[in-house]
Amino acid sequence: MNRILFEPNEIDASGVARVRDARAAHIREVLHGTVGQPLKTGEVNGLLGTGEIVSIAADGAVAIQVRHTDAGLAPWVDLILAPPRPRVMKRLLPQLATLGVGRIVLVGAQKVEKDFWGATLLKEPIYRPLLIDGLMQGAVASRVPEILVRRGFKKFVREELDGLFGTAARRIVAHPYGEGDACAKTPSGRGAEGRLVVAVGPEGGWTDEEVALLEAKGFERQSLGPRILRTDTATVALLARLMPDR
Amino acid sequence: MNRILFEPNEIDASGVARVRDARAAHIREVLHGTVGQPLKTGEVNGLLGTGEIVSIAADGAVAIQVRHTDAGLAPWVDLILAPPRPRVMKRLLPQLATLGVGRIVLVGAQKVEKDFWGATLLKEPIYRPLLIDGLMQGAVASRVPEILVRRGFKKFVREELDGLFGTAARRIVAHPYGEGDACAKTPSGRGAEGRLVVAVGPEGGWTDEEVALLEAKGFERQSLGPRILRTDTATVALLARLMPDR
Repeated sequence: MNRILFEPNEIDASGVARVRDARAAHIREVLHGTVGQPLKTGEVNGLLGTGEIVSIAADGAVAIQVRHTDAGLAPWVDLILAPPRPRVMKRLLPQLATLGVGRIVLVGAQKVEKDFWGATLLKEPIYRPLLIDGLMQGAVASRVPEILVRRGFKKFVREELDGLFGTAARRIVAHPYGEGDACAKTPSGRGAEGRLVVAVGPEGGWTDEEVALLEAKGFERQSLGPRILRTDTATVALLARLMPDR
Repeated sequence: MNRILFEPNEIDASGVARVRDARAAHIREVLHGTVGQPLKTGEVNGLLGTGEIVSIAADGAVAIQVRHTDAGLAPWVDLILAPPRPRVMKRLLPQLATLGVGRIVLVGAQKVEKDFWGATLLKEPIYRPLLIDGLMQGAVASRVPEILVRRGFKKFVREELDGLFGTAARRIVAHPYGEGDACAKTPSGRGAEGRLVVAVGPEGGWTDEEVALLEAKGFERQSLGPRILRTDTATVALLARLMPDR
């Protein structure tokens, strides 16, 4: 937690936020918080700024006077992801929020395990705290990534993708080159409108048909080298290779 | 498991490998192995090649006739890592093997939690299988990363680093730029001998003294952008930004 974020309803009319959960424990035990101590704070889906501890109660509850004036950083990339197993996905979600992903579309590519779609992780009360943890780690943004579930991959790509992301966005799909493909492409910046959409396939890879469908929609292939990466490693690696330096 | 690796002592004089552990279960249950089926195989710290299933016993043991002739890919980078908590480190180790790290030096930077050095994860019988899992995921290399433990960070940097990595290697340290530093450096290839050494700090960051010591030894700072990444995310992200495309 490099910045403590509060939900809007946790901040009262006089600008005092009150918490008693893991954030309070972090303030007390990791930051060794004392009354008057300044903290980096912010409001979920709102402004960032600073807070000052006004009280630490005997039961561990912490009250912080906050002053939020800074918009923070906007997301810089959207992700189309054929989800890995829920256990891997659970580890990946906070990292996606930290890295600045705006929207995550979970798609039913052919090699996605059918069990995934019944996972409790798909319920907002389960995944939202993981995303907020990632924002608190990253410390410079407050916007919670939006998660969309689209089990019909082809229907999503054909009918919804252009409307959702706009046709000017640069589009990249993580996919190894074929044996005979000698053309090594490297990332060269973002699309005409500065938006970037990346697609990462399932553990077993995209099918040829799926890649063809994405290529027909303007997705460029981006190889991550000859090593076969786990989905979570591949997603972080691809985002890292594309992300702005500052 | 995109390639099954065997220890040298698991392969008999006639080139038949016999396994009955998680690899056997993977062959039976994920690959739906049958007698005669070809597999991608290799020998730990040895050659890669192909195998053919010769028998699947009633107790689940699998025998594979192997033919290994290909050297596979050599590691391309070494890592100096101020280790995160053992739980995070355990997730990171297989990814480091997959990504092609040759040598991992775990150093006692000031903000590394002291508890770490007592972790069972530091015992070779515990960490070695995690590294081999990473190699089996990556599928193109067999060399198990070497792990060195150096609790004395300054002593290691001053007295041992040059001898271990050679002075011609390109050296990079992951570290945010100061507020006033407008110079965005980007990776520009590897050192004169094609070797690359990267240093990743602890959760709380390197101290100023530690960074100065690394810079005095020729390490260039590489920012990973304004977002504060978890150590495991930062390590994968830095390696991904530097790794060769093919």
